[in-house]
Amino acid sequence: MTPAHPGPDFTALFSDRARRMNASAIREILKVTQQPDVISFAGGLPAPELFPLEDVRRATDAALTRYGSAALQYSTTEGHPPLREWLGRRAGIPAANVQIVTGSQQALDLLGKILISEGDTVLVEAPTYLGALQSFQPYGPRYVQLPTDDGGIDVDALETILRTTPAKLLYAVPNFQNPTGRTLNAERRRRLVELTGQHGVLVIEDDPYGQLRFSGEAAPSLYTLGLEYAGSVDANHIIYCSSFSKTLVPGLRDAWVQAAAPIIAKLVQAKQGADLHTPTLNQMIVTELLDDVLPRQIETVRRAYGERAAVMLTHIEQEFPGGVGYTTPEGGMFLWITLPQGLDSTRMLQRALDRNVAYVPGSPFFALGGGENTLRLSYSSATPGQIERGIAALGETIREALD
Amino acid sequence: MTPAHPGPDFTALFSDRARRMNASAIREILKVTQQPDVISFAGGLPAPELFPLEDVRRATDAALTRYGSAALQYSTTEGHPPLREWLGRRAGIPAANVQIVTGSQQALDLLGKILISEGDTVLVEAPTYLGALQSFQPYGPRYVQLPTDDGGIDVDALETILRTTPAKLLYAVPNFQNPTGRTLNAERRRRLVELTGQHGVLVIEDDPYGQLRFSGEAAPSLYTLGLEYAGSVDANHIIYCSSFSKTLVPGLRDAWVQAAAPIIAKLVQAKQGADLHTPTLNQMIVTELLDDVLPRQIETVRRAYGERAAVMLTHIEQEFPGGVGYTTPEGGMFLWITLPQGLDSTRMLQRALDRNVAYVPGSPFFALGGGENTLRLSYSSATPGQIERGIAALGETIREALD
Repeated sequence: MTPAHPGPDFTALFSDRARRMNASAIREILKVTQQPDVISFAGGLPAPELFPLEDVRRATDAALTRYGSAALQYSTTEGHPPLREWLGRRAGIPAANVQIVTGSQQALDLLGKILISEGDTVLVEAPTYLGALQSFQPYGPRYVQLPTDDGGIDVDALETILRTTPAKLLYAVPNFQNPTGRTLNAERRRRLVELTGQHGVLVIEDDPYGQLRFSGEAAPSLYTLGLEYAGSVDANHIIYCSSFSKTLVPGLRDAWVQAAAPIIAKLVQAKQGADLHTPTLNQMIVTELLDDVLPRQIETVRRAYGERAAVMLTHIEQEFPGGVGYTTPEGGMFLWITLPQGLDSTRMLQRALDRNVAYVPGSPFFALGGGENTLRLSYSSATPGQIERGIAALGETIREALD
Repeated sequence: MTPAHPGPDFTALFSDRARRMNASAIREILKVTQQPDVISFAGGLPAPELFPLEDVRRATDAALTRYGSAALQYSTTEGHPPLREWLGRRAGIPAANVQIVTGSQQALDLLGKILISEGDTVLVEAPTYLGALQSFQPYGPRYVQLPTDDGGIDVDALETILRTTPAKLLYAVPNFQNPTGRTLNAERRRRLVELTGQHGVLVIEDDPYGQLRFSGEAAPSLYTLGLEYAGSVDANHIIYCSSFSKTLVPGLRDAWVQAAAPIIAKLVQAKQGADLHTPTLNQMIVTELLDDVLPRQIETVRRAYGERAAVMLTHIEQEFPGGVGYTTPEGGMFLWITLPQGLDSTRMLQRALDRNVAYVPGSPFFALGGGENTLRLSYSSATPGQIERGIAALGETIREALD
């Protein structure tokens, strides 16, 4: 074997699909913001000091004792039966309509995989969750952006679009949306379910934050309204995704999908090819925590994020110049800033970092571009003191940019 | 909202990709064979009684203590740095060329995703690992089957095929192949690396069983030969996948890929969209076990499987009628039976189940069909007594079928 042959041109060997993938804009930004001393409102990380560490330790021990080597063996693609049963019971549906996945991100990838053919129209909020765009992108969707305001998706605009555009799928985060923190109001939820039902459009309802409401009143999920609309679990055109990442801990990667039987059956096939099953032990750990730790933990996180959001809003009100818009989230981890027209949050980021504060520019959250004057702030993992100092620094940065 | 609208025709909404997915033949067979009293040689399950349960318990505790809430937080897509460093050191490559994945199955899915465009030619062994076909299938490959014998892939045939067929990818399990238990011999490995290198064909070397050799001498991995051939890590056209599923435990889903930098960079993008990262805690648990438990465990599993294989071979020799061929594995979990022409192992399965013994028919392992007279036996999770009784029952079944 003569050594030192030049390698192949790997890039030329990538699939069409791979060419549609890009490095995440946020990921690159987060690298910059991980310098010490930087107060980061950029990451979407749950507050680690609230994690139920000792409960997880105890639950792991209990799962290993209860199940022995079965906790470490291969397990079914559909997921740990007691976990599926608990989730089904809570949603009022059979366990058979629940599929466990490795983080909500996997739900989005597998749903994209089984639903999106190249060129299919996918309706997304403007702005929308960047991770969903990343999951769907390799499958070649054609995006249509839905305008939004403080009540969520503009359903009149949706109606107009559906009249002329044959769409396959609508993707939405109705509760405390990532990135805006906005919530789709109850009346619009009903109309969205009806409109998509009438037009034969499937809906992916992504709900990682729904349990983390700290003010206002909960509206029914699209999934619940879809059940009413269809009259049966297996005719529901809403596909619901949620996760234990924001309520318990993210590092175990336990999440789930609720959907009609034909969707679940195809998801099972897709998941078999993708990773066989979600780690067995991780599903058992979460199952041990469902009845006592989860409700307590939801209360803890809800209260903490409510306080942090309030502190951030108070300081925004005090520190930001007039003409800067902001959302007022009723839950979740994010709020959304709209700078006066002409300001560019991507260009402004270096100035903010010079003042030791970081955020995520808004434009990567728009499937078709736009939003240069917007940015996302996360209040979930900063202390009140950090929020105060960070918002003051950001206020100065904006003022400077306006000069 | 008027209730009881008929649901959409979900099947009509599936993507082209989803239409290429099928329920796993093996999965359906395994359901049948899970009746109590059935001695199953069908599953490919590692022996659970050998799992280092108490070590995993201790390692979990240690990881939670060492890393605290970071063990339960989101983590990097590339994987836990100490784990990547250890794997890199063992392979003599930088940690940057190691990507952690959620089971080897995810490696196959992500590699298929980034490499296979619709219609690309993928060379596979005849027979090959069914799970790889399942991962690749949605991406629309055109398979070409490589003939094999007891020395593995017939490299003369490979040379002939490469002369006329522009191929993108070759997928192989060189050590104790699933399903045949065969090993690609050292001389053929060199030729395979050279031939694919000359023709610009990437190779996925899937090596879950390589550490489980119980007889004979190890040949260098294709990856190592690829390093020699290319003279540098980032020009190596061999992509190596392995896993802790068969050496430690499968239920944690910890596996990895070694590859040239451009492949790793694209894998990272694909994995971000697929599940963000492999569960944090699971990577830390395995890392705690690398230095003391892993080598001990490899010895334990190797010895046990060697004994079980020997028992199975002894009883096959005694119980099976003349004209039945079988492989003699030097490691791993499987051996392969070739029945006399005209017998159909799928049709024979019910008769075997009537005698309380199960196996997997061979034909699903052929990408393009064939192998009706073959079947796979796994000896990894049966006791010597079960093997003796099961092989006797299978011998009777074959004799009866021959009558």
